[in-house]
Amino acid sequence: MDDPLSIVIFSGSDDRLTAASVFAAGAAALGRPVRILLQYWGLEAFRADRAGRGSGLSEDASEAGAAALTAAIASGQVNWAETFRMSKELGEVEIHACAQSMEILKLQPGDLDPIVDGVEGIAGFLGAAGSGQVLFV
Amino acid sequence: MDDPLSIVIFSGSDDRLTAASVFAAGAAALGRPVRILLQYWGLEAFRADRAGRGSGLSEDASEAGAAALTAAIASGQVNWAETFRMSKELGEVEIHACAQSMEILKLQPGDLDPIVDGVEGIAGFLGAAGSGQVLFV
Amino acid sequence: MDDPLSIVIFSGSDDRLTAASVFAAGAAALGRPVRILLQYWGLEAFRADRAGRGSGLSEDASEAGAAALTAAIASGQVNWAETFRMSKELGEVEIHACAQSMEILKLQPGDLDPIVDGVEGIAGFLGAAGSGQVLFV
Repeated sequence: MDDPLSIVIFSGSDDRLTAASVFAAGAAALGRPVRILLQYWGLEAFRADRAGRGSGLSEDASEAGAAALTAAIASGQVNWAETFRMSKELGEVEIHACAQSMEILKLQPGDLDPIVDGVEGIAGFLGAAGSGQVLFV
Repeated sequence: MDDPLSIVIFSGSDDRLTAASVFAAGAAALGRPVRILLQYWGLEAFRADRAGRGSGLSEDASEAGAAALTAAIASGQVNWAETFRMSKELGEVEIHACAQSMEILKLQPGDLDPIVDGVEGIAGFLGAAGSGQVLFV
Repeated sequence: MDDPLSIVIFSGSDDRLTAASVFAAGAAALGRPVRILLQYWGLEAFRADRAGRGSGLSEDASEAGAAALTAAIASGQVNWAETFRMSKELGEVEIHACAQSMEILKLQPGDLDPIVDGVEGIAGFLGAAGSGQVLFV
């Protein structure tokens, strides 16, 4: 299985970012190339000044579930920024910012966490996805 | 790459609709057939009486990000309904309403924006998707 | 078309669970294997003590749309837990809980609805997905 796994990270919530990061790490561990496109609130979460913090949890968490995940994040058991970093060490993982989102949100490449490899358009992203799966998170 | 790109638009938020529309336009520009299935709140956004307005922005936008996208929508820089229209001129883009959602929401084909090509069930949608990617937005 | 359809159910909202269930039923009716991975709030919705109730509806429902879906759920016209059950009778449908989500949410297999077939990691899920589509709901 050499097809890349591509992930569009649209959401900026810490829970969805966590899910995306474990898919990136899992696919990298399997030796699959991973290609990530950051859009809108997912892109905002990778701003350098956000330091790995997203927008909190989705509203469909139960009270107990939200408390459990919040505790796991606070203790460092769950850390999506770190999981993305580790994925890059494990395998071939590329993270690109969506060109249109950069323009709308008035962001410059220097505003982003250095883990982001560059800026990319939809056509480039779809081309690189080839016939591999694309998750929209 | 002749595989279609299929997109299930479930969400009715203007930000997710914008993301879906740029994927439709990008794939159409690459010459890929695009097939869209409108479910629930994504379907509501294509009601004729909504005139291209969705349900607002996702709650995981930052204050600055929401302000930037709202301004881009107000100025016409971002206009998902127009981007879907343009995609249809660029390439082979079909937009169908999910039959079950039509029934549950008590909608008739005449209630929808004329950009919607018809009503389709899940089996028809999956069959036409072939082995191409399916994004769930 | 023998490729499985894989669905990551991350969301716990009743509307997204409904959408996921109709994709599972549709693919099973077409004779495709279906593989479901339950993460976070999607996993919570399959707790035995939740008895097929999710976290309510997404906030991007219109008032009229939310009322219509709520009525359809109340009358039993829409019942995602039942649709998953029926899917399993129709075809080859496997539902697994994500191992990491189980750990974070401190759940044991005995806490889950018996419709859940077991616990699985990301690598196992991606391996079984093969080259079939993966929806992230």
